[in-house]
Amino acid sequence: MKNLVLLSAAEYQRRLDRVLEIMRGQGVDTMIISDAANLYYLTGRVFRGWAAVNVSGTKYFVKAPNNLKGDGVEHIRKVEEIPAKLGTAGRLAFEVDTASYSAVCRLLSAFNTGEASNASGIMKSARAVKTDEEIELMRLSGVKQEHVYSRIPRLYREGMTDLELQIALENESRLQGCLGLFRVSGDSMEIYMGNLLTGKNADTPTPYDFAMGGAGINPSLPVGADGSIIERGKSVMVDMNGNFTGYMTDMTRCYSLGALPQLALDAHQCSVDICRWFEANARPGVAAKDLYAGIADIVAERGLESYFMGHSQHASFVGHGVGIEINELPVIAPKSREIVQEGNTIALEPKFVIPEVGAVGIENTYVIRKDKVECLTNATEALQDLA
Amino acid sequence: MKNLVLLSAAEYQRRLDRVLEIMRGQGVDTMIISDAANLYYLTGRVFRGWAAVNVSGTKYFVKAPNNLKGDGVEHIRKVEEIPAKLGTAGRLAFEVDTASYSAVCRLLSAFNTGEASNASGIMKSARAVKTDEEIELMRLSGVKQEHVYSRIPRLYREGMTDLELQIALENESRLQGCLGLFRVSGDSMEIYMGNLLTGKNADTPTPYDFAMGGAGINPSLPVGADGSIIERGKSVMVDMNGNFTGYMTDMTRCYSLGALPQLALDAHQCSVDICRWFEANARPGVAAKDLYAGIADIVAERGLESYFMGHSQHASFVGHGVGIEINELPVIAPKSREIVQEGNTIALEPKFVIPEVGAVGIENTYVIRKDKVECLTNATEALQDLA
Repeated sequence: MKNLVLLSAAEYQRRLDRVLEIMRGQGVDTMIISDAANLYYLTGRVFRGWAAVNVSGTKYFVKAPNNLKGDGVEHIRKVEEIPAKLGTAGRLAFEVDTASYSAVCRLLSAFNTGEASNASGIMKSARAVKTDEEIELMRLSGVKQEHVYSRIPRLYREGMTDLELQIALENESRLQGCLGLFRVSGDSMEIYMGNLLTGKNADTPTPYDFAMGGAGINPSLPVGADGSIIERGKSVMVDMNGNFTGYMTDMTRCYSLGALPQLALDAHQCSVDICRWFEANARPGVAAKDLYAGIADIVAERGLESYFMGHSQHASFVGHGVGIEINELPVIAPKSREIVQEGNTIALEPKFVIPEVGAVGIENTYVIRKDKVECLTNATEALQDLA
Repeated sequence: MKNLVLLSAAEYQRRLDRVLEIMRGQGVDTMIISDAANLYYLTGRVFRGWAAVNVSGTKYFVKAPNNLKGDGVEHIRKVEEIPAKLGTAGRLAFEVDTASYSAVCRLLSAFNTGEASNASGIMKSARAVKTDEEIELMRLSGVKQEHVYSRIPRLYREGMTDLELQIALENESRLQGCLGLFRVSGDSMEIYMGNLLTGKNADTPTPYDFAMGGAGINPSLPVGADGSIIERGKSVMVDMNGNFTGYMTDMTRCYSLGALPQLALDAHQCSVDICRWFEANARPGVAAKDLYAGIADIVAERGLESYFMGHSQHASFVGHGVGIEINELPVIAPKSREIVQEGNTIALEPKFVIPEVGAVGIENTYVIRKDKVECLTNATEALQDLA
């Protein structure tokens, strides 16, 4: 039998305290959690079942696996068993943003209540500020991802398609320990192992709210590489899965085959300069929307607005929280209401699509510290020539 | 600009007629659909937005990409725009089993109604019976998956771990056109590219409702290969992603390094015999639970119950529908209420876990025809020795 909670007692308490503080602020007494990412945050592992979090301690109602034990662990077969085993629950919160309508209705009915608060929002807020231990897992992912990216010039062979280079990179990532799974919260985005774009394909709009496009190779998954041969004078943008530890880093680097036109070089430099500006200005207490506005100003000064975050279709943000999932808080966007906090981990991805050439720019994952910004993705930022 | 519906007019009509017939049977006038798998079924592509299906025709409310056009296509920014553009909707159905509670509440509010029928159930029923065109896509996936599996003996090298062999196989799959994405309906299961299990690890229970276990390499994704070296006298079970076309086949084959104990050989033969029995008995009109009972009888006759569908933890089914997603209808399980229909595509996976040896058995994807069963996964079923 295995102990359910894999976190150290101190780390467990840190995370729980953070969650309980937000619950108190919202007048929530008990949260019922079953989302894999939220369970992983609270316990250090994924199981099938529910965690009931309240001030008097957490209880775990496990459907599977059958070999977990520990304080507060009970094995149950269905959600309807929870209320009696839990006792007084007080004001409840359920994962209304990630659990299905049917699943939440079943919980409402089991608890004989008509209304519940938003546990998804509570968990999103809690998870937006990382503990040192979480940051260490991200740091390790960053180191591994840097190593994989360092292999890109060696993996490229003349005449390769975007897809062939992506597959070679997927293979290298897996051999270096990438877990493969790319966790996205909600159901509006699907992706496999990331995105590699060259030439015109970078300007193909996708259904998804990712920063970059691409037609993909099949209409059932219309994103990313489309089988284009990597040609001279085109860029190659690499934005691949950085999940090596359960916590991801998100890093984009840009390559070319031979020289790129001046416009592409200028846009790439603008992206690097935006990262420097962000590093100088992203501090606890700054509004996320002000960071977006500052970045938009830099883009406008250089006259690059029509290429920024896409050309034929524009993404509506330039950065996002990252950790267990790729789309965490805060979002760096014009209408974002979040204030940057110490311990946020933010992937900043100022990218540009230059028609006929491809996408340029970089993405780094940053930790917001008290009086500085720390970069977790330190691969060379310059455009690298694969020729 | 691209035409939204990629299906031929005839194929589109076939699918729509099937959906409308089930809607009529349930007294539903309009279904609002946004799940990627359901949109792909109805249109042949994935987009972000909603399809509103009713007898007077389908309307598509698209958020992205911005380059889609065609009959009934409107670009909108938020779901609240739909009711006015749609006009009279009659009795509504929403995707209550896949859409989040928040998303469905937002629809209920936009349509100013308090109740909706279950569009998830309607789409599940419709998609359980495949058209000839869907079956052709699955047939192509099967052919490609067979080819990838045929390379397994060549990919194996002495001293390899389960994970190394899995990564080599992932790479081969991708080079042969595998799309990577492994679509699972609902949020209770996460997986990357499939499952390769050797030795003891096969008996490690997982959180997920997959047929087989494995510890995985990280507690954030506790399933599958755990880095064990493939040893003499152990089995290697391969159950990898068969999504080459947007429609998956599901195939498991079994290997060994050197000879396996008689118990493992007997169990493997039992699995093959169960497939033969299923091929002889799975016909339109037969109850899924009766098929399960017949299979359980064969297992009991051979005295293999304690190894069937797991050893330290047992899966509660022996087969499942497969197509766009891995967990479609019908389910071949003791309590299944489904009746097998012509056009069902069913993955049958009678598997056994033999302690210390590993998992044995096979899995085939079948099409239920009027008076026969057609197999889409025709790789050699015998245990193959990698030594």
